[in-house]
Amino acid sequence: MPPLTASSYATDLDAIREAADRIALHAHRTQVMTCSTLDGLAGCTLFFKCENFQKVGAFKFRGACNAVMKLPDKVAQRGVVTHSSGNHAQALALAASTRGITAHIVMPRTAPKVKQNAVAGYGGRIYLCEPTLKARHEMTAQVVNATGAELIPPYDHPDIIAGQGTIALELLEQVDRLDAIIVPVGGGGMISGIAIAAKAINPSIRIIAAEPAGADDVARSMAAGTLIEQVDPNTIADGLLTSLSERTWEIIRDHVERVITVTDPEIIDAIRLVFERMKLVIEPSAAVGVAVALHESFRALDGIKRVGVILCGGNVDLDRLPWMNV
Amino acid sequence: MPPLTASSYATDLDAIREAADRIALHAHRTQVMTCSTLDGLAGCTLFFKCENFQKVGAFKFRGACNAVMKLPDKVAQRGVVTHSSGNHAQALALAASTRGITAHIVMPRTAPKVKQNAVAGYGGRIYLCEPTLKARHEMTAQVVNATGAELIPPYDHPDIIAGQGTIALELLEQVDRLDAIIVPVGGGGMISGIAIAAKAINPSIRIIAAEPAGADDVARSMAAGTLIEQVDPNTIADGLLTSLSERTWEIIRDHVERVITVTDPEIIDAIRLVFERMKLVIEPSAAVGVAVALHESFRALDGIKRVGVILCGGNVDLDRLPWMNV
Repeated sequence: MPPLTASSYATDLDAIREAADRIALHAHRTQVMTCSTLDGLAGCTLFFKCENFQKVGAFKFRGACNAVMKLPDKVAQRGVVTHSSGNHAQALALAASTRGITAHIVMPRTAPKVKQNAVAGYGGRIYLCEPTLKARHEMTAQVVNATGAELIPPYDHPDIIAGQGTIALELLEQVDRLDAIIVPVGGGGMISGIAIAAKAINPSIRIIAAEPAGADDVARSMAAGTLIEQVDPNTIADGLLTSLSERTWEIIRDHVERVITVTDPEIIDAIRLVFERMKLVIEPSAAVGVAVALHESFRALDGIKRVGVILCGGNVDLDRLPWMNV
Repeated sequence: MPPLTASSYATDLDAIREAADRIALHAHRTQVMTCSTLDGLAGCTLFFKCENFQKVGAFKFRGACNAVMKLPDKVAQRGVVTHSSGNHAQALALAASTRGITAHIVMPRTAPKVKQNAVAGYGGRIYLCEPTLKARHEMTAQVVNATGAELIPPYDHPDIIAGQGTIALELLEQVDRLDAIIVPVGGGGMISGIAIAAKAINPSIRIIAAEPAGADDVARSMAAGTLIEQVDPNTIADGLLTSLSERTWEIIRDHVERVITVTDPEIIDAIRLVFERMKLVIEPSAAVGVAVALHESFRALDGIKRVGVILCGGNVDLDRLPWMNV
């Protein structure tokens, strides 16, 4: 009789190491920054992994690049497709153009012009649809039928998760003796990849999920012991609105020590603090991790002195910075 | 008869190397960043020296730290004094507190509360005066009389110039085969130190001054062949309002190949571009160098492929970012 273990997760350390080799020529090895002011506020030493400096301004390029580069030539020739109006759309468009293939990007027609332009700027072919989930799925299916393009979803895919896991490989090479890593969670692709990689390298490292109170499916799922999908999210952290999948929930359930939720005002304070003291442009999703690092619930944890914090992206609307009433 | 040479400049490579040793424990060795988007726009490879990551958010800490650390104990005990409402005030306050002495900072009573708080936060003792040059000088003289504190001006001082020159030592270690360095100019302390250091290490390196059209005393002085002081400056680059001194003009006259001036709209576009594409918070003074790097007058220069650009600081008012009409 086989032992009662979680049989197999979506990815493992070998797959993440292969992803690192695969994307090495295309993705940035991002810097780690420190800030004595924030250390003082947090009461520990924080190491910020600057994925806001990643290509397309967000970690999403890692996963998209891994998924695209891993496709067999015959499949890749038919192109790739996704529905997204966020960082994954830009990431997939750039990854595809890097490989010299076509990215078909389905976006709601309500997507801001600046995001449409960004995708087009990276060479993506845009298909506008009505702003409903049904319309997005239908349009995507049409594109697949017409082109044979391969669907590359934003997080619920082993190659995407493996690509995001490369963040942890780098971080653990760049900083020694880390006690914990704080990772913002939306769909859970990034924290899944990071948790698998980091725990495989250092089983005692502690993985802390950072979540906006207005999209707290991790908190509710962990409390219930079962996946509870996100409905009606409401937070300024627009990169973290999506729901966990079974694939990411399994990994989170078994590898994440705890989740800490923060409010939108705490997130806004954290964005501003990072702009002001670190001179870095980050998006609200990234500030969720910073807000957790500064939160009393995090400070209350024993034995945590050296902490990685993933600044997952920097694509914030500069015309509507959240501390301005415009 | 002695040869007709500019006899001696305010500083030299030895003094700058000594400054580097003196400040090594206290100042950051700042990172150099690159950006393929900006390279594409400029038509050459740009290496951004990130003094916005320096302590107090600006290069000014280098000079202030060098000047303060170099004081003999007996002098240092009496404290230091300056009149400034800008980055030098914060830099001197932090340098003094690092040495455990008092910084007396004379500021116009109209200085924004946020700047007063920053100086106080670094331990500076603030003296508010009427917002006139006369009142500032009188108040400063009073402080000197009462305390015996040593006056440390913002740029017109050999130790300040030597401290700023350490930027070039680092940059030339961090990036090889630089053809040119673009340096924003206000009072000229930074470009003087950089020019002396860089030219001593590599005599063929080309130093380009970057200046706002609304404070173009370098351009007018170079055209006239003699120092023409700045009066009534008018530019968004509030760190570059001051006038050259004889000390800095001599160095600029003999070491700077040319000056390129940029308009306020060009400066604003450059700030936004750096926020958006590099994910860095910079102040308008720093954007002056970026705007020059992207300017057709710079592109017209022959033989320039690898260029250092000094991002001199990041202390911008986040409540009034210049592209917002508030």
